[in-house]
Amino acid sequence: MNSTTKTSGSVSFAAPRSFGTAFKSDLKETFFPDDPFKAFANEKPLGKVRKGFQYFVPILGWLPKYSLKTFQYDVLAALTITSLAIPQGISYAKLCQIPPIIGLYSSFVPPLIYAIFGDSKYLAVGTVAACSLLIAEIIGEVADPKADPTLYLHLVFTATFITGIIQTALGILRLGILVDFLSHSTITGFMGGTAIIICLQQLKGFLGLKNFTTKTDVVNVLKSVFQHRNEWRWESVVLGITFLLLLQFTRWLRNRKPKLFWVSAMTPLVVVVVGCLIAYFAHAKDHGIPIVGDLKKGINPSSIQYLTFDKKYFPAVVKAAAITGLIALAEGIAIGRSFAIMRNEQVDGNKEMIAFGFMNIIGSFTSCYLTTGPFSKTAVNYNAGARSQMANAVMALFMMFVLLFLAPLFSYTPLVALSAIIMSAMLGLIKYNEVYELFKVDKFDFVICMAALLGVAFISMDIGLGISIVLGLVRALLYVARPGTCKLGKIPDSVIYRDIEQYPEAARNSGVLVLQIGSPVYFANGNYIRERILRWVWDEQEQLDASGGQLEHVLLELSGVITIDMTGIETLAEVHKTLAARGIKLGIINPRIKVMEKIQTSHFVDKIGKENIYLSIEDAIVNCKFSIRKSSEAEGSS
Amino acid sequence: MNSTTKTSGSVSFAAPRSFGTAFKSDLKETFFPDDPFKAFANEKPLGKVRKGFQYFVPILGWLPKYSLKTFQYDVLAALTITSLAIPQGISYAKLCQIPPIIGLYSSFVPPLIYAIFGDSKYLAVGTVAACSLLIAEIIGEVADPKADPTLYLHLVFTATFITGIIQTALGILRLGILVDFLSHSTITGFMGGTAIIICLQQLKGFLGLKNFTTKTDVVNVLKSVFQHRNEWRWESVVLGITFLLLLQFTRWLRNRKPKLFWVSAMTPLVVVVVGCLIAYFAHAKDHGIPIVGDLKKGINPSSIQYLTFDKKYFPAVVKAAAITGLIALAEGIAIGRSFAIMRNEQVDGNKEMIAFGFMNIIGSFTSCYLTTGPFSKTAVNYNAGARSQMANAVMALFMMFVLLFLAPLFSYTPLVALSAIIMSAMLGLIKYNEVYELFKVDKFDFVICMAALLGVAFISMDIGLGISIVLGLVRALLYVARPGTCKLGKIPDSVIYRDIEQYPEAARNSGVLVLQIGSPVYFANGNYIRERILRWVWDEQEQLDASGGQLEHVLLELSGVITIDMTGIETLAEVHKTLAARGIKLGIINPRIKVMEKIQTSHFVDKIGKENIYLSIEDAIVNCKFSIRKSSEAEGSS
Repeated sequence: MNSTTKTSGSVSFAAPRSFGTAFKSDLKETFFPDDPFKAFANEKPLGKVRKGFQYFVPILGWLPKYSLKTFQYDVLAALTITSLAIPQGISYAKLCQIPPIIGLYSSFVPPLIYAIFGDSKYLAVGTVAACSLLIAEIIGEVADPKADPTLYLHLVFTATFITGIIQTALGILRLGILVDFLSHSTITGFMGGTAIIICLQQLKGFLGLKNFTTKTDVVNVLKSVFQHRNEWRWESVVLGITFLLLLQFTRWLRNRKPKLFWVSAMTPLVVVVVGCLIAYFAHAKDHGIPIVGDLKKGINPSSIQYLTFDKKYFPAVVKAAAITGLIALAEGIAIGRSFAIMRNEQVDGNKEMIAFGFMNIIGSFTSCYLTTGPFSKTAVNYNAGARSQMANAVMALFMMFVLLFLAPLFSYTPLVALSAIIMSAMLGLIKYNEVYELFKVDKFDFVICMAALLGVAFISMDIGLGISIVLGLVRALLYVARPGTCKLGKIPDSVIYRDIEQYPEAARNSGVLVLQIGSPVYFANGNYIRERILRWVWDEQEQLDASGGQLEHVLLELSGVITIDMTGIETLAEVHKTLAARGIKLGIINPRIKVMEKIQTSHFVDKIGKENIYLSIEDAIVNCKFSIRKSSEAEGSS
Repeated sequence: MNSTTKTSGSVSFAAPRSFGTAFKSDLKETFFPDDPFKAFANEKPLGKVRKGFQYFVPILGWLPKYSLKTFQYDVLAALTITSLAIPQGISYAKLCQIPPIIGLYSSFVPPLIYAIFGDSKYLAVGTVAACSLLIAEIIGEVADPKADPTLYLHLVFTATFITGIIQTALGILRLGILVDFLSHSTITGFMGGTAIIICLQQLKGFLGLKNFTTKTDVVNVLKSVFQHRNEWRWESVVLGITFLLLLQFTRWLRNRKPKLFWVSAMTPLVVVVVGCLIAYFAHAKDHGIPIVGDLKKGINPSSIQYLTFDKKYFPAVVKAAAITGLIALAEGIAIGRSFAIMRNEQVDGNKEMIAFGFMNIIGSFTSCYLTTGPFSKTAVNYNAGARSQMANAVMALFMMFVLLFLAPLFSYTPLVALSAIIMSAMLGLIKYNEVYELFKVDKFDFVICMAALLGVAFISMDIGLGISIVLGLVRALLYVARPGTCKLGKIPDSVIYRDIEQYPEAARNSGVLVLQIGSPVYFANGNYIRERILRWVWDEQEQLDASGGQLEHVLLELSGVITIDMTGIETLAEVHKTLAARGIKLGIINPRIKVMEKIQTSHFVDKIGKENIYLSIEDAIVNCKFSIRKSSEAEGSS
């Protein structure tokens, strides 16, 4: 019967692939979706080694082709980002509660390493505010940065080292998949929340406070600010607001006239320099305007001997390292990718992870703390015309010059200037429009985002982030636990079957119910799918009863079912059994390769009969109508 | 152009549903997939109240129609399960380290409650071995059952109470979805592992040991058995092996001749009675065969005053309650469902949870511990011809009779008889065939199952279960993080497009690449989907390059994409941008209702153009060929 009534094609009942083949294919899809070794396939052994080196050390690929003209662009970009790196480096180090010079060190070695191993042309390496504060928050729980600054600093280096190890391992094990679970909504909310609390932290610098809470949440910070009202200094406030207005004005200018981006990029350095001059000539310290103080000349000293793996502090260090490491990866990779996409280039996420990892490992040996590719700096780099990773290398050289000769000059920087710089940067990180867009398009995404934002602002950074990630996972699991099923009808004058909720004009087939399942059928949704299918069936039967009809066939369209597990197969078997008891035949349409393999191995195919597996809905309908006609003829003749 | 070249139908660009409508629909699919209130829809207010009562109290539905004939069947079944309930009740209470009489109490009140609220006709209520041991393991960590048996017992009652609260809450909140995440493979492995360690525990009874470890894992138990070699008693071993052989023989007989199921159901009671007689007449206690001892007459005393919510023990109690509660639900609901399916009836999982919850809450007030619907007892009940929940009520009456008059007789039961009964029951729980089937059909399921089995056997019950559940979740997340994409080709002589890996004969369309995505596109897989699509594209382009062709269109078939989030939309936008830069046009085929709503709201539709959204692959191909022809004509004429 099968062969005579099929309109076209036939179902493939090819023997299942061997376990090895299927496993290899799954492994490749899971860990090597980008097929990184493709370029090696047609090479001779020597060529393979050469390509391999080039793969892992991108500088070997681009440096030989590097031209003087490109170099000019890169030097210009490097000049711009160096002017940003100095104030940002000092500011974020203060956020992290470590000596400001560490911030400058961190803009020297890591960019050099990235220039060698990095895959993104536009990424500019530097420290980030959110991770700096997060490190302070977590490590501050086990070591007091004021009472024992040496221990605290050593733990920060250790955390940076472990971050590097984790990032390298993730890259080598190709576990970029973990970073994928930090959704865009989570990151947006986390950044927004962090921006809020960092801004509030800056009230300390703005008001010239001496005593301040070590907590970061909104309530405690505001409480602390108002408790120390007697310490407020108007000189500090005036200076701070002036600087902030200047910074915000140049930022506004940049948005209006993108060509003037360099003005806004240079302003923080201008603020620092002006601040230094004021502090130096007006003896600011005596007027309640504290300065940074104590910036020694000289490049990064070795810090490898300071790494401490004491059991007492290790859990906190690992926690800080893991969380900040993942956030840094998420930010750095996303940003590298988005700028690459603008130029239609590709960035290899796993390779980037290894580059970031090396950067932080070597950084931790040379008195640097956590670095990644921050958005603001990368955007400036891109706009300043950077053409290759060379921009990072040149920036590193500029920083070396600063460290060797100019560092002490910056010791006069007033803290309020740094606060203004941080606050201005943070105000740009609260993405009102994006949050509103989330609200408009996807309410659940909005909730995930707000959970991170409010959690970070009112509880703590790690808990806020955690809640948001868990909500994201719950959502992912809900997708699989409650997959979309729908009833299909035929679009008039076609052989196309579509969801009748979406296309109300689609016609039903009397006596035949076509259902589409849109997800793997397996343990997490087996019960749901069975109940849902049966509900469709009883509903259909009820409607048919009214018109005296009879439901004879249920067809399951499985094109969207990419795989199935044991529970899923049992679910289908139970549906088959329940329907059979009511005299309703079950048909399966277009089981995909993995599904077909499993229903063959588990003998489900034998249970429902090969003739009830169809290649297309049309085939199945033709067959069902044929059998309905036959049965009604039989009834008629009896 | 669009309207002239489309072969049939047109894409629906209906305005997105309102948030309220979409939210309500999602909520219904998530929590009310079985549409429990359907029956109420067409009733008058009074009818609604009546139906509501009937819904929550099933006995109101079935009792009025109950007939004497059915009652005869139920009494016979009740007799059979009572004979099983006595030895099992005593045995499992011993496993739980509580006085054996509690096991008998637990077969009196809970079955009565279930008869009122339960939805499954065949389920027989009783205690279960796995949960009994699990309670002992977890509560035993905070209270020693030997040193302070009163405190321990009170904590067990409290755990039962909390289990009841959790189960009721899950039922009312319709969170049966949580139970869905205990996959069949996990349960199989957990039961197998539990069976192994429970069997090993019975060596204590078999060998007549006095000293025994409180640990449950294989290594520690075996060590303990061999450390106390001097305590081994041959009398006990002989008796035990005799009983075990008898039990196993009748079990074997039942498998050969299913009609003799009652023989195997009665044997445990026979073993107990014979054991009592031997113990009584041969003064077994003097020969190293310990007996149960101390079974008082009388029905369940109140225990509500013993519930203790001391902070010191509460975490352990809640842990025990939550884990055993979920396992009990998973077992009870699955078993109720599978027997209902045999008879083509339906069981409402959420209603069952409420029934189990009430059963355990009221049980905890009346000196009972955790009960559910165990597989063995339910199977016996079904085979014995039970027709309704009445069988449970009658069993409760029989148990009352036993408690009032016969209980003290059972105090002579030799522990070795109980050990033989437990061991025999446990041997049936190791499902070799099922594990082998998992190995054959689905290697990952097999790993999940073995993780539970080995974890329970060699580490501890809760950790084994935890590892297995986490593996299951990882798998569920992998499904969504690495969805199946495939390249489609046209099956010859048809308009059907299928995976060319599965159907190698399917023809490619020159210049048009059709890709199918089979899962929601969202944060967890956005990066993967982008990379995978681009890899397909570059591969295709490479092949075309060889033949001098040019890839002009990429079509994404989205029938399997049930929903999309913000990151997913961005992913598609990025793909569109990358392709556009190479002069390749992106087309979208059959976006489903939720996807369509979101790509409209987020203006992605405007970005790629309405004319590039098609209803079917055939439509899209016709359109693409038209545009390819036009462009080549234009080239020809220029």
